[in-house]
Amino acid sequence: MYRPQIKVLDCSIRDGGLLNNCNFEENFVRNVYRAVCAAGVDYVELGYQADKKFFSPDKYGKWKFCEEDDLKKVTEGVNTSTKISTMIDIGRVDLDQIKQKKDSVVDMIRVACYVKDIDKAIDHVKHVADKGYETTVNIMAISTALMPDLEEGLAQLAESPVKAVYIVDSYGALFSEQIHFLVEKAKPYLNPKGIEVGIHCHNNQQLGFANTIAAIISGIDYLDATLLGIGRGAGNCPLELLISFLKNPKFKVRPLIKAIEEQILPWQKKIDWGYHIPYMITGVMNQHPRTAMALMESEDKEKFIEYFDQMTSALP
Amino acid sequence: MYRPQIKVLDCSIRDGGLLNNCNFEENFVRNVYRAVCAAGVDYVELGYQADKKFFSPDKYGKWKFCEEDDLKKVTEGVNTSTKISTMIDIGRVDLDQIKQKKDSVVDMIRVACYVKDIDKAIDHVKHVADKGYETTVNIMAISTALMPDLEEGLAQLAESPVKAVYIVDSYGALFSEQIHFLVEKAKPYLNPKGIEVGIHCHNNQQLGFANTIAAIISGIDYLDATLLGIGRGAGNCPLELLISFLKNPKFKVRPLIKAIEEQILPWQKKIDWGYHIPYMITGVMNQHPRTAMALMESEDKEKFIEYFDQMTSALP
Repeated sequence: MYRPQIKVLDCSIRDGGLLNNCNFEENFVRNVYRAVCAAGVDYVELGYQADKKFFSPDKYGKWKFCEEDDLKKVTEGVNTSTKISTMIDIGRVDLDQIKQKKDSVVDMIRVACYVKDIDKAIDHVKHVADKGYETTVNIMAISTALMPDLEEGLAQLAESPVKAVYIVDSYGALFSEQIHFLVEKAKPYLNPKGIEVGIHCHNNQQLGFANTIAAIISGIDYLDATLLGIGRGAGNCPLELLISFLKNPKFKVRPLIKAIEEQILPWQKKIDWGYHIPYMITGVMNQHPRTAMALMESEDKEKFIEYFDQMTSALP
Repeated sequence: MYRPQIKVLDCSIRDGGLLNNCNFEENFVRNVYRAVCAAGVDYVELGYQADKKFFSPDKYGKWKFCEEDDLKKVTEGVNTSTKISTMIDIGRVDLDQIKQKKDSVVDMIRVACYVKDIDKAIDHVKHVADKGYETTVNIMAISTALMPDLEEGLAQLAESPVKAVYIVDSYGALFSEQIHFLVEKAKPYLNPKGIEVGIHCHNNQQLGFANTIAAIISGIDYLDATLLGIGRGAGNCPLELLISFLKNPKFKVRPLIKAIEEQILPWQKKIDWGYHIPYMITGVMNQHPRTAMALMESEDKEKFIEYFDQMTSALP
């Protein structure tokens, strides 16, 4: 009843870090890491490898930079097959600071980019692949990509050393039919070269989990999720739902339920993510959630209709 | 891009009433009713027609009984094509108290039942159809129905005067593949007799909206939803998402956003519904949410792992 090649990646710390500038305590990260390992999840993403020239350590926590010592402190002492991942953003990383794989606990580096930056992403992929890492390219905001650009980008990715290319529904705008369409678009370019396709969904329309299932049905084997859906704005596909859905006996949901109770719930009282009407509006409109996030952080967070009217008013 | 025959039913008041013993203020119900009418929704369900012998009016509000005068007070003065629905439960209704359709603002009466009670439901359907109402049978907890029983029930419903038969995923346990399976199971019995199939989803696995879309793709034209998903336990398919998804120009989302801001949000601060781990656990296990609801109302509402261990322990 299961596809053994399915790989699940937990990005609770990385995507959740977008809610609090990566200011998680070491113990929180350690406990989430251990829970994810105990659950048999294949990869865990612990943060960004960002350049301190662009992000001040006064404002951003350790998981924005993922220095080797910090990663070691939270991951050491666990005998696990779960691999460690970090993310880098185009233009906000100093590639020279990334260590050789042999000198790092990191196994995989994922490059996040928009379609227009795929060339740069491939450049980054080559750099980190040469250092010995597994690599992915995560195409953000794919729901706004123009098809000729996407096709050209996929063709170029097919010639790169990338291990997997992720469809990222950053705006939570896609329906299952569009997931199927994008997967069918990507596979002919990538699969013949042995490159996998992955999926990363947001929950603006409560479709994060459903679209991940749609991707599985379309044959996608690389799946992103987070504990209790923690993540920017409306959040992500909940890891506990995905692991409960998957039938591979190597996956265990109990450690995840425990981590949600002990680690994630306290954060849920401090930082707000999940389905809210402003995020629903940006999702339906296929727009970046930044205006909704600004609203949700303001005193006007419940002035839905005023926001709706702004968003739907005619362009000047 | 749209199927004109799709009918949407809002059951915010009825399903939401399960959260507070139907103790909604008249003004709340009036405003929700008006919003749903303004949105072009086809039906609005305002409560139950329950027997006061079984439910004390001291404990239960007006919308548990839906007396004619109370319905008139909240619906009068609106020029609308939105039809009014109520629900009756097998064994908890005094059929003789139901007025003739010509003496009532109610257009449709929906009979909720488990598979084992389909015979009784058909009896109720005949009674209220004779009085002039549109009727439906809503097969609750269909995810636990034994297939021979369901097939027998469907065959009998096919010979009844019922207008539509709803697949009700009371436990929020189904995935899209199972929705497709159940729809394909029901249609050959019902469609040749001109009986429609409907869908009512719960959100225990965040699939309420997704499964409603799955049903649409399977050709289902009767769709239940509620504002902000208000409803028992994890709640329902959110009406604002469904209306945004449907392309029929008669539907308007703005009145729904306004009603959510002004009417539903204040309730959300008093009564809790939506995705929570205890509801997720009953959904994954295909069980009634009653133990999860009891937990969520207790001081132990955040003791997820204790609850998980109870639920997954070996049977004696």
